[in-house]
Amino acid sequence: MMTKRVREILSYYDSENVGVRTNLARFFNQGRLAGTGKLVILPVDQGFEHGPARSFAVNPPAYNPHYHFELALEAGCSGYAAPLGFLEAAAAEFAGELPLILKLNNHDLLYDERDPISAVTGSVNDALRLGCSAVGFTIYPGSAERREMYEQLREIAEEAKQCGLAVVVWSYPRGSGISKEGETALDVVAYAAQIAAQLGAHIVKVKLPSSHLELAEAKKVYEAQRIPLEPLAERVRHVVQSCFDGRRVLIFSGGPKDTDAALLDEVKAIKAGGGFGSIIGRNSFQRPKAEAITLLNKIMDIYAG
Amino acid sequence: MMTKRVREILSYYDSENVGVRTNLARFFNQGRLAGTGKLVILPVDQGFEHGPARSFAVNPPAYNPHYHFELALEAGCSGYAAPLGFLEAAAAEFAGELPLILKLNNHDLLYDERDPISAVTGSVNDALRLGCSAVGFTIYPGSAERREMYEQLREIAEEAKQCGLAVVVWSYPRGSGISKEGETALDVVAYAAQIAAQLGAHIVKVKLPSSHLELAEAKKVYEAQRIPLEPLAERVRHVVQSCFDGRRVLIFSGGPKDTDAALLDEVKAIKAGGGFGSIIGRNSFQRPKAEAITLLNKIMDIYAG
Amino acid sequence: MMTKRVREILSYYDSENVGVRTNLARFFNQGRLAGTGKLVILPVDQGFEHGPARSFAVNPPAYNPHYHFELALEAGCSGYAAPLGFLEAAAAEFAGELPLILKLNNHDLLYDERDPISAVTGSVNDALRLGCSAVGFTIYPGSAERREMYEQLREIAEEAKQCGLAVVVWSYPRGSGISKEGETALDVVAYAAQIAAQLGAHIVKVKLPSSHLELAEAKKVYEAQRIPLEPLAERVRHVVQSCFDGRRVLIFSGGPKDTDAALLDEVKAIKAGGGFGSIIGRNSFQRPKAEAITLLNKIMDIYAG
Amino acid sequence: MMTKRVREILSYYDSENVGVRTNLARFFNQGRLAGTGKLVILPVDQGFEHGPARSFAVNPPAYNPHYHFELALEAGCSGYAAPLGFLEAAAAEFAGELPLILKLNNHDLLYDERDPISAVTGSVNDALRLGCSAVGFTIYPGSAERREMYEQLREIAEEAKQCGLAVVVWSYPRGSGISKEGETALDVVAYAAQIAAQLGAHIVKVKLPSSHLELAEAKKVYEAQRIPLEPLAERVRHVVQSCFDGRRVLIFSGGPKDTDAALLDEVKAIKAGGGFGSIIGRNSFQRPKAEAITLLNKIMDIYAG
Amino acid sequence: MMTKRVREILSYYDSENVGVRTNLARFFNQGRLAGTGKLVILPVDQGFEHGPARSFAVNPPAYNPHYHFELALEAGCSGYAAPLGFLEAAAAEFAGELPLILKLNNHDLLYDERDPISAVTGSVNDALRLGCSAVGFTIYPGSAERREMYEQLREIAEEAKQCGLAVVVWSYPRGSGISKEGETALDVVAYAAQIAAQLGAHIVKVKLPSSHLELAEAKKVYEAQRIPLEPLAERVRHVVQSCFDGRRVLIFSGGPKDTDAALLDEVKAIKAGGGFGSIIGRNSFQRPKAEAITLLNKIMDIYAG
Repeated sequence: MMTKRVREILSYYDSENVGVRTNLARFFNQGRLAGTGKLVILPVDQGFEHGPARSFAVNPPAYNPHYHFELALEAGCSGYAAPLGFLEAAAAEFAGELPLILKLNNHDLLYDERDPISAVTGSVNDALRLGCSAVGFTIYPGSAERREMYEQLREIAEEAKQCGLAVVVWSYPRGSGISKEGETALDVVAYAAQIAAQLGAHIVKVKLPSSHLELAEAKKVYEAQRIPLEPLAERVRHVVQSCFDGRRVLIFSGGPKDTDAALLDEVKAIKAGGGFGSIIGRNSFQRPKAEAITLLNKIMDIYAG
Repeated sequence: MMTKRVREILSYYDSENVGVRTNLARFFNQGRLAGTGKLVILPVDQGFEHGPARSFAVNPPAYNPHYHFELALEAGCSGYAAPLGFLEAAAAEFAGELPLILKLNNHDLLYDERDPISAVTGSVNDALRLGCSAVGFTIYPGSAERREMYEQLREIAEEAKQCGLAVVVWSYPRGSGISKEGETALDVVAYAAQIAAQLGAHIVKVKLPSSHLELAEAKKVYEAQRIPLEPLAERVRHVVQSCFDGRRVLIFSGGPKDTDAALLDEVKAIKAGGGFGSIIGRNSFQRPKAEAITLLNKIMDIYAG
Repeated sequence: MMTKRVREILSYYDSENVGVRTNLARFFNQGRLAGTGKLVILPVDQGFEHGPARSFAVNPPAYNPHYHFELALEAGCSGYAAPLGFLEAAAAEFAGELPLILKLNNHDLLYDERDPISAVTGSVNDALRLGCSAVGFTIYPGSAERREMYEQLREIAEEAKQCGLAVVVWSYPRGSGISKEGETALDVVAYAAQIAAQLGAHIVKVKLPSSHLELAEAKKVYEAQRIPLEPLAERVRHVVQSCFDGRRVLIFSGGPKDTDAALLDEVKAIKAGGGFGSIIGRNSFQRPKAEAITLLNKIMDIYAG
Repeated sequence: MMTKRVREILSYYDSENVGVRTNLARFFNQGRLAGTGKLVILPVDQGFEHGPARSFAVNPPAYNPHYHFELALEAGCSGYAAPLGFLEAAAAEFAGELPLILKLNNHDLLYDERDPISAVTGSVNDALRLGCSAVGFTIYPGSAERREMYEQLREIAEEAKQCGLAVVVWSYPRGSGISKEGETALDVVAYAAQIAAQLGAHIVKVKLPSSHLELAEAKKVYEAQRIPLEPLAERVRHVVQSCFDGRRVLIFSGGPKDTDAALLDEVKAIKAGGGFGSIIGRNSFQRPKAEAITLLNKIMDIYAG
Repeated sequence: MMTKRVREILSYYDSENVGVRTNLARFFNQGRLAGTGKLVILPVDQGFEHGPARSFAVNPPAYNPHYHFELALEAGCSGYAAPLGFLEAAAAEFAGELPLILKLNNHDLLYDERDPISAVTGSVNDALRLGCSAVGFTIYPGSAERREMYEQLREIAEEAKQCGLAVVVWSYPRGSGISKEGETALDVVAYAAQIAAQLGAHIVKVKLPSSHLELAEAKKVYEAQRIPLEPLAERVRHVVQSCFDGRRVLIFSGGPKDTDAALLDEVKAIKAGGGFGSIIGRNSFQRPKAEAITLLNKIMDIYAG
C-alpha cells in the first residue's frame, strides 16, 4: 500500500518519532493523489483572515462548516486545514474520513497593522481531541513581530512532535522589513521556505515566487550564480532547493482567484519544478462545488500525470 | 421533554463533550422559551461597565444583586449573565433555579483608552463553584489589543470545555482599527460573529448591524453579490449566515434604551432573519420590575410565536 | 468512503471526542473488512505472556517483530496489537500502514500466582510517539487484584481519551474468585464484557463462552428467563447483549490452536450472534505466513459475507 | 568511520530518537571491538551485590573505583557499568574516555529474601550529570516482586529515552516462581530475554543458558519443535532468536570465576550462536590487571575474529 | 587515549558536572585534531542568518542538510553546529558519528533592526533527543536587547548544564551601543569574550579583532599599559587572556570569503596567539567539497603542527 515514493519522503523525517511519520503518511495516502508523493490540501481560514462575506458570499453554501469537509472529500483532497471553530463545528460528522490540520494561529483585518502577528487561537490538545494529524502555524518573516511568532512556533512544534503530530508552517513574508513587491520576490520566498524548515516544519507552505529580487545582497548572488528567474518552474525549483534540497515537503498556495487556465499553468510549473503540491483555498470554495471538484481534479491529474 | 428543535441545535455541537452539550441544553430548556430553540438572556454587567448610578439609579431595586435573579426568573428568561461579584452575592439563594453565565472579563470607564481590553475578573473555577452553566467573555475586534484578548479567550475556552462549561462570547468591534460608525456596520458585525465562532464560542452575541459598510474590500463584495442591506431582518440573516450558517447560536443585544415599539420591531426582525434570540440588559433592569416583565414577555411571545 | 454501518457504529461513541472516534474509524476502514463494521485484529503478546518458544518456535519467522506487521498487512487485518518492545522494534518501518494498539500491561508465566495481575509496561505517551490508534489493557475479573487493575485502567483510559486514543480492554475472568471452568462460563464472560464496557472500554475483547454457568444467583436467572445456552451463536448473542446491547464493539479471541474447521465454525457463530469480529493470535502466527493469510482471509470472508 | 554492521544494528532502533541511537553507537565505536558490532562490557556492581571483600579482596586494587575505569580503558572494553557511588567517585577523572552505564537499581545480601527486588539507587538525572550513555536496570522474572520491577523499569526507560539515553536491562530469572536450576534453564533464559526486549530494553543481558528445561508447557514445545539443547552455541542462537530474532542487542554474562579455557570456549559459543558479546565482571577484576587485560583481549580477539 | 593537553583543558571545567566534561571531551577527541587541544568546527546557520541562495548557491550540494555532515566528517572536523531544522533533517543518518551543537537561537535578515536579537528556535530537550553534545547561543553585546539575550542564555545554560550538555556562545558585539568599526575593535572583542565567559559559556566564539579601539575609557588603559595592537597574534593573545587567561576555550570565526592565503595566515596568528581553534562556515561550504576538505586540512595541519 505504501508506495516507494511515499516511503522515500517519509525517510526524510527519520529523526522524528513514529507518530509524526504516521501522521505525515496519512496525508500522502489520502484521496486522489494517494501514493503519488504529491499533495493538494484544502485550507479554509479566509473566514477569519478576510471576513465571511469576502470569503463565502460568492458561493453561499461555503458559509456552512460542513461544506468544506464535503468538498475536500468529494474532490479527493489530501487533507483539510481550518481554525478551531470550523473544525469543532463539523469534525465529529466526518471523523476518520480525511486528515485534518488545526490552524493554531489566525489573523483578522479589523485592525490594520504594518507588522502583523497572528493570535494563537488553538492548542495541541485541541488538535488531539479533534483527531487532527497536524497543527498549522503562520509566520510572517519581515514583520517586526517575527521573533515572537518564531518562538510561539518553537514551543507549539516541540509539544506537537512529542504527541506525534506533524507541523505545517505557512511562511508568508510580510511587514515593515520588506516591500509589498518583496513579499513574493524569489529571494524572499526562498528565504521564507528556508526559515520555516530551519524552525522544524515538516511541511512548508509558501506563495508562488515572482521574478523580482528584493534584497540587495541576495541579488548580487542570484546574478553572479545565474540563478534562473524564468520560467516559473525554475523559480519553483529554486525554492524547493532552498527548502533543504527537497528533503522537506514544500507546497504552494494558489493565491487569489485567477483564470483557471493560469492556475493550471502554475500547477504545471510547480510540478515541473519539483514542488510537492498545492494548497488551494479561494479557487476551491469560491465557486459552485461541482466546478470546484472539476478544477481540483484537473489539478490533481496534473500532479499525478 | 427535549424538543426536536433543541435536539437539532445540540447536534451542531456534536464535537463537544456531553458536559458542554448538557449545559447548552439548560439554557434552551429554561423559562418561557423552553423547547423553542430561542433564548432571551438577562445580562447585568453594566454596574462594572458603566458605573452603578448610570446603571441602576433609574430603578433603585436593581442595585441589589438579588433583584436580577428574581427578574430573570419571574420573567422566564433563559439565563442570567453577570460578573463575579454579582453572582457571588446572590447565587446561593437561587441555586438551581436558572442557568448562569459568569462573565469572565470586564471593563470600566474610569480609564479611557482608544484600544480597549477588558480585565479578566473571574475564572473557570469560579464558574464551577458558583454552579454556572457557561462562562462569558468579551472580545473587541478592531482593538490594537485584540490579539491578547483572543489568546486569553483561547485559554479560558479550552479549560471551560474540558470542564463541560459552555462558552459565550460577546464580540463587539471597537478600537482604533475601525470608525465609530463601523462598530455596527453590517460587514464588521458579520466579521465579528465569524471571529467569535472561529475562536470556538458556543454562543455568540453581537450588536444589531446597521446598513453601513466599513471595509473597502468587503464593500466591493457586498455590492457585487448584492447582499441585501435592508430591511433589518435581511441583515440579521446575513450575520446568522456569517456565524457558520446558523450552526452556532447567535443572539443580539438590545443596545441602549429605545422605545419599546422599536425594540419589539427589532426582535421581530431578529426572528424573521433567523437569529436565536436576544440578550436584553438595560431595557430590562432600567424600569420597574413589573414593566420589565411585561416587556420581556412580549419579546418572548414574538420568539415563541 | 465511510459506510452507513461504520457511521452507525461510530454513533455509539458520540460522547467521546472526535479524536477517539477518528481512531476507532481507522480500524473499521482498514484492510479487507474495511467498511463492513467487522474487525479481525492480529494480537501478538504471546511472547511476553507465554514465552518465546511456546509462541514462535512452530513458525520461526515469527520471532522477528517485522513479521507480524507484514502478516497483518498482507492478510488485510483491521489492526495489530503488541507490547512496547515489539512495536518499538518495527513500527518505524511500517509507519502509517495500519492502526496499532499498544498493549499497556502484560503478564508472564515465570511466577505462578493464583490471583494474577499484569504489570503496566507502557504509557499513553508511548502510544502517541509510536503513532498508535489505541491502547490495550487486560483486566482479570475474579482476581483478588482486580481492583488495582480496574483503577490502573481508569487512569490510563482517562488520559488516552483526552489524547484522542481508543481504549481496547481484554477482559479475562481469572483468579481465586472463580473456578477454572468458570473462566469461560457464559454468565461470567457476559459479566466480564459488562465490566469492561462499564469501565469505559471502546472495544471489548472476551473469550468465547461455554454453556457452563458459574454463579449460583446468576444461574437462577438464566434458567428463569430461559436464556438459551445453545448453540454458540446464542451465547454470543447474549454476550453482545451484555455488552451494552451491541453499542460497544465486542470481539472474541480465537483461543489456542484448534482445527481450522472448528475455528471457522466459531467465526460463523460469532457472526450469527452479532459479534463484531475476532482477535486471532496463535491461529495466525503459529503457522506459515501463506497458510495464515489463507485462514485469515477465510475468516474475513465469513464476516464480510 | 561507522561500519556497515554498526549501521545495520543502529537501524534496528529506528523508532528511537537520534539521541538513543547516538548513545548506542558510542558503545559500538569504542575500544578494541569498535566497528565489529560486538561488545565486551565491564560491569562492577559486585561491591554492592556481594559485598566488598567477596568482590575485591582477591585483587585489592579493585577496591578503588578508579581501578575499574583504568581496566576497562586499558583492555579496550566497549563500556563500563557501575552503581552511582562507583561512578561518582571516579567518572570526573575519566570524563569522555569511555561510554558509561549507570546501574539504576541494586541489591545487597544483608537481607536474605526469597523473592528479590533491587532498590532503585540512581536516576536518569544522575546518568545525565555523570555523562553516561545508558542506564542499567535489573529485573528478576520469577520473583513475586517482578511486577514492581517491570513498572519501575517502564517509568525509567520512558524518561531515559526522552533524554536520548540507551536502556540496558539485566534480566535474571530468580525468586519463588522458579527452581534454582531453572534460573539458567534454556527456556527460562530465552523467556527472560524476551521479557526484557518487550519492556523496551535496547541492550539485554542474560546468563548463559544450560540445557535444562524448566517449564512443563514450554518443554513440550522444545521437544516437539526439536529445538537443539546442545551444543551451547545452539542454545545461544535460540536465546538470540528469542530476543527479537537478533534485532535487539543481546549480551551474556560470564558468571562466576571459572577456568579461562572454559570461559573462552563460552565466548566462542556466544560468537558462533550470534550473540552480540559479553559482560565480564568477576573474571575481569578478580585477578591482577595485566592478567585481566590479557584475558579480555583474548575474548575480544575471538569476537573480532 | 586522552592526551595530557585535553586532560588539562578539561581540568579548567572541574566545577562542572561530569556530563558537561564528557561532552566537551567529545569535541577534543574527534576528527583530525583529536587530542591536540585544538578545534575546527563547521557551523552552518547561514541558511537562516543570510538566506539560502547567499549561503548555498555558489556550491549547490550545500542546500542538502546531509552535505554538511559529510563535509564535517570527511574533513575531520571537531564538531558540527546548525539550527533545529538542519539537524532534524539529517542527524538520524549520522547518529553517533560526530559531536553536534544545536544552535538554539537564530536571526534572519528579512527585518532590519538596529538592535538585533535572535529568536529562540530550539530547546535543551531538542538537543537531547537529537543526541547533541552542546547547545549554541548567540549574544549581541552592544544591542539594546542584550539583557534579554543574556537572561535567555542564563536559563538555557542552567538547564543544559544540568543535563550534561556543553554551552557554546557566539559573542558578536552589534547594535546601537557601538559603531560598525567597533564590532571588531580589539577592546570590544576582548570585552565580548569576557562577557560570554562570565555568563558561563564553556566555549566562546568571537570574530578576529582589528587593531581599532572603540571605548574611550578602555583606550586609555590600552595605551597606558601598552597592550600591543599588532600583529594579529598579539591581539589574539589579548582576547585569549581576556577569556579567563586561557581557562575557557576560545575559538575564532573565519568571517566571509577571503583569499585562502589570508585565511591561513589568520589561522597561524590564532595559533601563535594561543587561540583554541576556528569555526569555519562560509569558507568551508561555499566551495566544492574536495576543495573545502583540502583547505580545512591545511588549517588543521597548522593547528596540529
